[in-house]
Amino acid sequence: MKSLAILGSTGSIGRSALAVVEAHPTRLRVAALAAGDNAALMAEQIDRHRPAIAAMASEAGLTRVLDATHRRGETTLACGPEALIAVATHPSVDIVICASSGTAGLEAVLAAIDAGKTIALANKEVLVMAGALVMDAAKRRGVAILPVDSEHNAVHQCLHGRAHDEIRRIVLTASGGPFRDVSAAALDDVRPDAALRHPTWQMGRKITIDSATLMNKGLEVIEARWLFDVGADQIDVVIHPQSIVHSMVELRDGSVIAQLGVTDMRLPIQYACSYPERWDASLPTLDLTRAGRLDFFEPAHDRFPCLGLAYRALRAGGTMPAVLNAANEVAVEAFLDGRLGFMAIPRVIERTLTAHAVESVSTLQVVRRVDTWARDFARLISRELELTV
Amino acid sequence: MKSLAILGSTGSIGRSALAVVEAHPTRLRVAALAAGDNAALMAEQIDRHRPAIAAMASEAGLTRVLDATHRRGETTLACGPEALIAVATHPSVDIVICASSGTAGLEAVLAAIDAGKTIALANKEVLVMAGALVMDAAKRRGVAILPVDSEHNAVHQCLHGRAHDEIRRIVLTASGGPFRDVSAAALDDVRPDAALRHPTWQMGRKITIDSATLMNKGLEVIEARWLFDVGADQIDVVIHPQSIVHSMVELRDGSVIAQLGVTDMRLPIQYACSYPERWDASLPTLDLTRAGRLDFFEPAHDRFPCLGLAYRALRAGGTMPAVLNAANEVAVEAFLDGRLGFMAIPRVIERTLTAHAVESVSTLQVVRRVDTWARDFARLISRELELTV
Repeated sequence: MKSLAILGSTGSIGRSALAVVEAHPTRLRVAALAAGDNAALMAEQIDRHRPAIAAMASEAGLTRVLDATHRRGETTLACGPEALIAVATHPSVDIVICASSGTAGLEAVLAAIDAGKTIALANKEVLVMAGALVMDAAKRRGVAILPVDSEHNAVHQCLHGRAHDEIRRIVLTASGGPFRDVSAAALDDVRPDAALRHPTWQMGRKITIDSATLMNKGLEVIEARWLFDVGADQIDVVIHPQSIVHSMVELRDGSVIAQLGVTDMRLPIQYACSYPERWDASLPTLDLTRAGRLDFFEPAHDRFPCLGLAYRALRAGGTMPAVLNAANEVAVEAFLDGRLGFMAIPRVIERTLTAHAVESVSTLQVVRRVDTWARDFARLISRELELTV
Repeated sequence: MKSLAILGSTGSIGRSALAVVEAHPTRLRVAALAAGDNAALMAEQIDRHRPAIAAMASEAGLTRVLDATHRRGETTLACGPEALIAVATHPSVDIVICASSGTAGLEAVLAAIDAGKTIALANKEVLVMAGALVMDAAKRRGVAILPVDSEHNAVHQCLHGRAHDEIRRIVLTASGGPFRDVSAAALDDVRPDAALRHPTWQMGRKITIDSATLMNKGLEVIEARWLFDVGADQIDVVIHPQSIVHSMVELRDGSVIAQLGVTDMRLPIQYACSYPERWDASLPTLDLTRAGRLDFFEPAHDRFPCLGLAYRALRAGGTMPAVLNAANEVAVEAFLDGRLGFMAIPRVIERTLTAHAVESVSTLQVVRRVDTWARDFARLISRELELTV
């Protein structure tokens, strides 16, 4: 029986993780939950899964959970960053599923690593912002970082313990998002509602926009660099609209190993929970003859400059990926608020990267300071580029 | 340094195996060669690779080799079935690449297993005729059987040491051959020259016809049963015209692992020679964006009854697959000679299967007797169905 902490339990990944727990009641149990501000759902999850501890981001959220749950006094309820860390490091926890969006998860993941927990990582920012710190800590502590993102999870399955020197190239697949075939001119006029209609995956708002700009894939390139200890030149992106091939690894003899599956996050989550075992799953089976065809294209770097910006940040190294991430969050928020045009997102990021002098990621404090600077700077640029209504 | 014996060195696989040896002169050397009747090429191969021993099928072939080679007295030269076994069991040999076509290789493979050699198997008939005998012997002797056939090699790469109980289903891909889209009526009129034009692989005549009837895939289904110890219901065939996905394994959680690559037999041969290591290869790299699309279809069982006949033989068990193989060889030969129609091939096989009472494959003698009976019976049926010119 493995005990889980789920950081971000009310989000899309968190809810899928709880579905996996319910499908394996003799193998998995929930020990700790943390969420942002969805108090109603958190109260339901607490009543159903009976964790030892649960945390909300804010005191207001905590108050609403206390009002709604039937387990006051049985589940420890708390709020704020310390509560998140208490969830991630709770003594009964074996695996921490880190699915809290944004930067909130970083400190909690580092604390969980120090506490010797296995990390199932679904939060891109953790490795993008502080890959060197996180991987060093994990290595020092002998802790496994298991990727839950479908692409990196696919790479992990393809590698299956193969020697590192067998890897020639990692090929991450990308659906291409809703604007794959949209002209450069038309991209200027894209509105948030159109960008939020993703063709193959149901996800949160931020990641759906990242998927439309290909920044999501850019962040994944940076994650792959850390998860699999490869250089930027060893990571390629290929557009694959059907999202059936989740990613591939080219080995040193040219042989390519791919992982394919239905687009259901329960599959990579269960994989991370069961690893190194593999358990049955009662999910729909992939039928390639029904899918019929799989397409593969080069990404259009001219129309989707965010991907190239991510490679640029990765090659610059140090704090540059953290700057990329912060500027992107600011720009996407401005786009979702209707203040910024779709093609202005990469412009905000590009100008922020250009203004930054790279530092080495030696401590969490450096990351925090650079993150704050980049957000402030990106906000300035965003305002400069704001849509005139 | 590993020493190879190559059974069938002048054929397509044998020549590719020698190219692999030449690409890895510090890792591989040729210790022993055997061929059918291509004496000129065998003499060249002996002069170039300087094996300790070489064998031809017939005395006539041996005489021509003795005339042509410059290594009389340095390489032991012999002929006949005993010579083939001497090649397969030569004390200096580590790996036996069994690429001799037809049934000739079976006895040699059993002898090589008894001698403790690693088997790189490219001869389908060995497992189709005597899978139970061969796998039992290999298990008893602790000998590895590494598949060289691109499909089974792909499955071996996908499994990569995964536990047997993780396998839910093996999916073998088939190009569909040159008549994939040809109507049932038109198949009646197919002539040998059309059937010999395979769309994606360059292979020998017999296997190219087997590819056109889908019997090749049927034989592979039977091989897969033995190589991976799975039931007939766990092996599926899917038509994939581009031959880029070489095969797939569906694991118990529904995740599918696939192996992809260029269509070059040097890749699986090198894999079998290097295993459990993997070596660099200077072959063209797979570029999926240039391939563009991958298609997958259900096989058309009505137009290609040979595939269903193979499943029928596999489910019947015992000697039935040997009968299938023998009847198929006879029918394909009659077709290549222009004596039998294309759609008469499955009819000859079907009638031979129906006439056979299954026995258990307890000894090589049983296999030989049944093989002889099936060939005689299939010849009778072939004559009955012969084309009236």
